Amino acid sequence: MSESGAEVMARFVGAENVERGREYLEQLDPELHRYILDFVYGEVYAGDVLDAKTRALCTVAMLATLGQQLQLGVYVQAARRQGANEGEIREVLRQVAVYAGFPSAWNALATMKAALERFDEAEEADR
Amino acid sequence: MSESGAEVMARFVGAENVERGREYLEQLDPELHRYILDFVYGEVYAGDVLDAKTRALCTVAMLATLGQQLQLGVYVQAARRQGANEGEIREVLRQVAVYAGFPSAWNALATMKAALERFDEAEEADR
Amino acid sequence: MSESGAEVMARFVGAENVERGREYLEQLDPELHRYILDFVYGEVYAGDVLDAKTRALCTVAMLATLGQQLQLGVYVQAARRQGANEGEIREVLRQVAVYAGFPSAWNALATMKAALERFDEAEEADR
Amino acid sequence: MSESGAEVMARFVGAENVERGREYLEQLDPELHRYILDFVYGEVYAGDVLDAKTRALCTVAMLATLGQQLQLGVYVQAARRQGANEGEIREVLRQVAVYAGFPSAWNALATMKAALERFDEAEEADR
Amino acid sequence: MSESGAEVMARFVGAENVERGREYLEQLDPELHRYILDFVYGEVYAGDVLDAKTRALCTVAMLATLGQQLQLGVYVQAARRQGANEGEIREVLRQVAVYAGFPSAWNALATMKAALERFDEAEEADR
Amino acid sequence: MSESGAEVMARFVGAENVERGREYLEQLDPELHRYILDFVYGEVYAGDVLDAKTRALCTVAMLATLGQQLQLGVYVQAARRQGANEGEIREVLRQVAVYAGFPSAWNALATMKAALERFDEAEEADR
Repeated sequence: MSESGAEVMARFVGAENVERGREYLEQLDPELHRYILDFVYGEVYAGDVLDAKTRALCTVAMLATLGQQLQLGVYVQAARRQGANEGEIREVLRQVAVYAGFPSAWNALATMKAALERFDEAEEADR
Repeated sequence: MSESGAEVMARFVGAENVERGREYLEQLDPELHRYILDFVYGEVYAGDVLDAKTRALCTVAMLATLGQQLQLGVYVQAARRQGANEGEIREVLRQVAVYAGFPSAWNALATMKAALERFDEAEEADR
Repeated sequence: MSESGAEVMARFVGAENVERGREYLEQLDPELHRYILDFVYGEVYAGDVLDAKTRALCTVAMLATLGQQLQLGVYVQAARRQGANEGEIREVLRQVAVYAGFPSAWNALATMKAALERFDEAEEADR
Repeated sequence: MSESGAEVMARFVGAENVERGREYLEQLDPELHRYILDFVYGEVYAGDVLDAKTRALCTVAMLATLGQQLQLGVYVQAARRQGANEGEIREVLRQVAVYAGFPSAWNALATMKAALERFDEAEEADR
Repeated sequence: MSESGAEVMARFVGAENVERGREYLEQLDPELHRYILDFVYGEVYAGDVLDAKTRALCTVAMLATLGQQLQLGVYVQAARRQGANEGEIREVLRQVAVYAGFPSAWNALATMKAALERFDEAEEADR
Repeated sequence: MSESGAEVMARFVGAENVERGREYLEQLDPELHRYILDFVYGEVYAGDVLDAKTRALCTVAMLATLGQQLQLGVYVQAARRQGANEGEIREVLRQVAVYAGFPSAWNALATMKAALERFDEAEEADR
């Protein structure tokens, strides 16, 4: 595998967030940070059998199901970065209502809305 | 929406399973059966913004996260029916280890294996 | 079924909250809003076999079990609106300790307390 | 509180099941058995502010939400013993689809069906 | 059992927190307060077969798995009070990543960090 | 880290189970098998800050909380292998009742009982 964990992570969450994540995670727990780079991104996300957009949308589905709002916001943005449009993300979150219930779908849509607003502002600022 | 709920359901789980499901669900609870046809398939799954293969893989991700093995087996087969290959389904289930833990991923891979064997046998018999 | 989803919803959450919910949900996701009116209230809650007070208390039990505090606050008020008194709601939430653990019961009681204070203030203001 | 935990338990699960439970739980863990008699039934279920039928239906709602099928079967029968009819139990389980997802509702209805068949057979045998 | 529930509770969460807890819980729900003193601490935590440090670390593991951040903060401090050092608590929380997923471990480490800072400040102030 | 993942795994689940696990996991998913050896045991469990007995008991607590019965049976035996006696495991599982509810504790105690019987039979056969 020629791509490093940090490079795979950057493809999903953006290079600037890898850097911010480094600072945050190093002071939180350097071991967890290493696991995320080496195992999560260096192994699990590094596979190329599944395309990156589908991968990101499946992660959105799982995080919404688990009610993990913080990481959900990050992966809604990752899905956009991989080419998913807002309509596709919405369809995934409506499906959450069927499997994990309406409150989970509702909360996830609120998280998605805020995350996309921040994403669009950052895109705007970059131009 | 021109396609009926039963038609959308057939695209995902196969026409023969809509028929079998009808018998089973009618004696279990006719109201739940109606909700599944009219709401789950007639509304949520009927949207065409998200492609059917991604939809099925997101459902696989959610059901594995929730540990719902029975429905997971059905949706592993639905994912294959929509063009996902075994390698792609495996990648999704390895991602489950990251978000919902290793036991959930392990159990889901066992369910996937059994479901794909039944799927291949049925394909074989159809030829 | 002669009563519309919006009318059933109003019986449970109050007419003013149907109106507020409309604005909030329309900008969050118009499809989810439609599902809530047509499926959740137009179908599931519309049945009259189970009395409305028991229905609301069962929803309180489920939301406390799931840790969905936002919706729990709404349904604690719905239970009061359907004639449940504070003592009855407390008994349900103590039962949550047995099935979903003490932290879930504790968190739910805190949500209940805040929701009932807002409910009583609104009642007061209406007089 | 003049009624003992075992008496409260008998009102919900039937005197014969208190006896069977005693044997099973004593060899499983005598401490857990004592907690169930003294705390669960001697305290939580002993309150008389909430009527027993509503209590049992709320427990049905929670156990279905948690996917605890074994205990759900016992409480479906407890709900019947307290005067809930099959239609009321079904309404509660359909509501589970809204808050905990369709797979949870589906599994719970299957458990309910089997539990009610055993309940009716036992009633029949008692005549 | 000669030690009262309040005394066992004080060993785990500190005498000053028993006092603060009393005020908070009495206004939240006096019954729940009594259950916590008599059942949780008077019975479950009162056993002396398992040492108090292991007990506290197991509770940390469970609360992190359940995502109950409020109570997790209290038990991270309880673990320190029983002689667990920061390194041991970190090891437990890294194990959470394996069984309940990385977001649960991440959130728990953030809660741990804040709880240990408050704990050290209080220790400092006591000197 | 001088000890390999397979060696750490053997310390917890027994050398014979590493071998059996190899066959099972290789046909289930070779990647997941590699993650378990390299990440779970080669990294997370390899740390020596926390003693092995406490580690195993914390895993028992987490698996009981999650209702993962299959892996719980394996870790009840791992806890015994690391020097925990039956009484200590029971205390952990009674604590599960407080945080994850009585049904989870009950189910876990049943799994523990069966796992300890198999463990004792194997010990007997080895003599």
